[in-house]
Amino acid sequence: MEKQKVLINGERLKNTVEEFADFGSTKNNGVTRLALSDMDIKVRRHFQSECEKLGMTVVSDDMANMYATLPGIDNDKSPVVVGSHLDSVKKGGRFDGVLGVLTGLEIVRTVIDNGIKPQVPIVVTNITNEEGARFEPAMMSSGVISGKFDKSTMLQSMDEDGVTFEEALKNSGFSGKEDNRLKDAAAFLELHIEQGPVLESESLNIGVVEGVVGMVNYEIEVTGDSDHAGTTPMPMRKDALFATNNLITEIREKMNKLDDKLVYTIGRMNVTPNIHTVIPNKVVFTLEARHQDAKIIRQVEEIIQGLPESSGKEKCDVKTAKQWDRNTVWFDEKLVNSLEQSATNIGCSYKQMVSGAGHDAQFIATYIPTAMIFVPSINGKSHSEDELTHWEDCENGVNVMLQTVLDLVKN
Amino acid sequence: MEKQKVLINGERLKNTVEEFADFGSTKNNGVTRLALSDMDIKVRRHFQSECEKLGMTVVSDDMANMYATLPGIDNDKSPVVVGSHLDSVKKGGRFDGVLGVLTGLEIVRTVIDNGIKPQVPIVVTNITNEEGARFEPAMMSSGVISGKFDKSTMLQSMDEDGVTFEEALKNSGFSGKEDNRLKDAAAFLELHIEQGPVLESESLNIGVVEGVVGMVNYEIEVTGDSDHAGTTPMPMRKDALFATNNLITEIREKMNKLDDKLVYTIGRMNVTPNIHTVIPNKVVFTLEARHQDAKIIRQVEEIIQGLPESSGKEKCDVKTAKQWDRNTVWFDEKLVNSLEQSATNIGCSYKQMVSGAGHDAQFIATYIPTAMIFVPSINGKSHSEDELTHWEDCENGVNVMLQTVLDLVKN
Repeated sequence: MEKQKVLINGERLKNTVEEFADFGSTKNNGVTRLALSDMDIKVRRHFQSECEKLGMTVVSDDMANMYATLPGIDNDKSPVVVGSHLDSVKKGGRFDGVLGVLTGLEIVRTVIDNGIKPQVPIVVTNITNEEGARFEPAMMSSGVISGKFDKSTMLQSMDEDGVTFEEALKNSGFSGKEDNRLKDAAAFLELHIEQGPVLESESLNIGVVEGVVGMVNYEIEVTGDSDHAGTTPMPMRKDALFATNNLITEIREKMNKLDDKLVYTIGRMNVTPNIHTVIPNKVVFTLEARHQDAKIIRQVEEIIQGLPESSGKEKCDVKTAKQWDRNTVWFDEKLVNSLEQSATNIGCSYKQMVSGAGHDAQFIATYIPTAMIFVPSINGKSHSEDELTHWEDCENGVNVMLQTVLDLVKN
Repeated sequence: MEKQKVLINGERLKNTVEEFADFGSTKNNGVTRLALSDMDIKVRRHFQSECEKLGMTVVSDDMANMYATLPGIDNDKSPVVVGSHLDSVKKGGRFDGVLGVLTGLEIVRTVIDNGIKPQVPIVVTNITNEEGARFEPAMMSSGVISGKFDKSTMLQSMDEDGVTFEEALKNSGFSGKEDNRLKDAAAFLELHIEQGPVLESESLNIGVVEGVVGMVNYEIEVTGDSDHAGTTPMPMRKDALFATNNLITEIREKMNKLDDKLVYTIGRMNVTPNIHTVIPNKVVFTLEARHQDAKIIRQVEEIIQGLPESSGKEKCDVKTAKQWDRNTVWFDEKLVNSLEQSATNIGCSYKQMVSGAGHDAQFIATYIPTAMIFVPSINGKSHSEDELTHWEDCENGVNVMLQTVLDLVKN
């Protein structure tokens, strides 16, 4: 079996991805399939039907997470679980999440085609509301089943139209028993698009994900005086925008010295009163930073906490407030090694990398041996209709995952 | 008459300012009296009635500018005109504008009290819609009567409720004949609060205004890519906010070398998409600069136009677009000298200064000999309920203006 490799059907994978992209397809080749929306419910039914055609049993848990099980020879043994999410952001792409679910489906189809009898069950899973685009927060349901999030709080999460997650859950037809939750498994494996430009820029087929980086998020408020732009001499101003300009320069100089792998972003900035003839008296901005090493994150926090309470020449007040943080999660070493071996075996180039984005796998990793692989995102685009992955890269990724699954279900 | 100086009644001035502040008074000691609003119409009627009590004739022109005339001995001669505006911004102060109109009223009262017979008429004027807070632009009616603005365009200016200036004008009861417009005059004199902190910080009574500074206003747009904040390594980003940070630093370094009297402000800045986990792909900000010397303004424009079209490390596109500019206006030298002499005569400290803010006087100066004086603004505040001027400073200012008016009406 090592000589004559079992491989997936790339054409079938492509057709299935395109078939699933019809559920919520947008004008510009994207997908809008918000969690538990009509389109999400339709695609779930279609997924269930495709699984049942293969003789799989499909159940849902109390968070509407779906588990399609292909029985093994010994069904008392812990299953191998492959999956991701079918929901998308508004005007998202056709690969983000769904490709990881269809990876599981294609693997099962390939197993059946090749008459392979797995020793343990193979479960293909669709985790509810990974994106958090309709109901905050992101990774809601993996958070609940791993004990990270409080279920009753999550049920109250409300969409823009005032519908709670609880109501959407009831009306979906996919709310099942709590007892069906993913409890134990031999492995949880997730394939996802990279959502960044690294693999493409380095011409690599596969990213073997060692873990998901920790991060910290601060809000910084700079307060001055909103005087008349024409009548207030420069030395008498308390210009919150110029003070902010100095602060950001200082932050960047210090952050850039820390580590090459650190990423940090000032994504949101609001200026008050935001009138062209008035000196700004308030600027509020966010600063988030991500790195795999907790020591570097601590250094980031030291930089932020070390900012002066009053900016120099501009005499503005500076307040920093931590919003939230999360620690780096490391994936299962044996699974990571197995995925690398699989890539090598089928001749795929790869690198180990850490994920800068969050994934359900990071919560599930807290109680089940877990690993992920990434496939390249063209131009690094995601959460956008421009998101794209070459079919060949999809096929390579699923083949890598298949080799590891076959290896795990042999025993 | 040089020995025994005629002076105003400071107590009466205070009472009159307080009386006028009741029209549109706000909770926090300010005033909301938008142009041609009910409160503006009420205060206009009150002003008219106070003038008529003094034997003055009150007419309006086709822009509702009001002219209250105290006849002189020779009424064929050009009048001396004193005035400003009775309208305010929303939640503005109780001195901005109205103090200049009441300066005229107090001067006429003083002239009458002292049995002075002016050789030429004295006209107290209230110019409509100086603020532009309800109907844009600011200085609308002085702009129309001086030929700077097109009247038919101004008539179409619309407030937030969809009311045009033309409709407001018709309903005000103050729309008069075009023939009543201020055509020629020996002098136009305006007293105004400084709206800046200079006089107070230098402990001076009076600012004798030589002119109103020229200014230029640009909009600058920086465009990058909105990639994922977690998955895009720093060197692969096109971060429009960091590019903007560099640009502003560069602009400030260059601007700060130009001239001490230059003031420049980045008052408005909008970041897109303004989400804390997304790298900003667009930042748009305004840059306005004011200086009395056209050469310095040209240098400012050279700095802005010399900005790189593509920012260095961030590889963002930079576009600059001039929004508008206006030239410095110099006031009548004889009147400026007369006001300085008047300040000296009554023992007021003063300095010559240029106005960084716009005033009706700058448009009227294009066809009538014009000058202004400023009185100190506490903490430099204006266009705010915090706006305040000491009563003693008001009294000093009106007394300075009185001496010059008495000098002008002697002949």
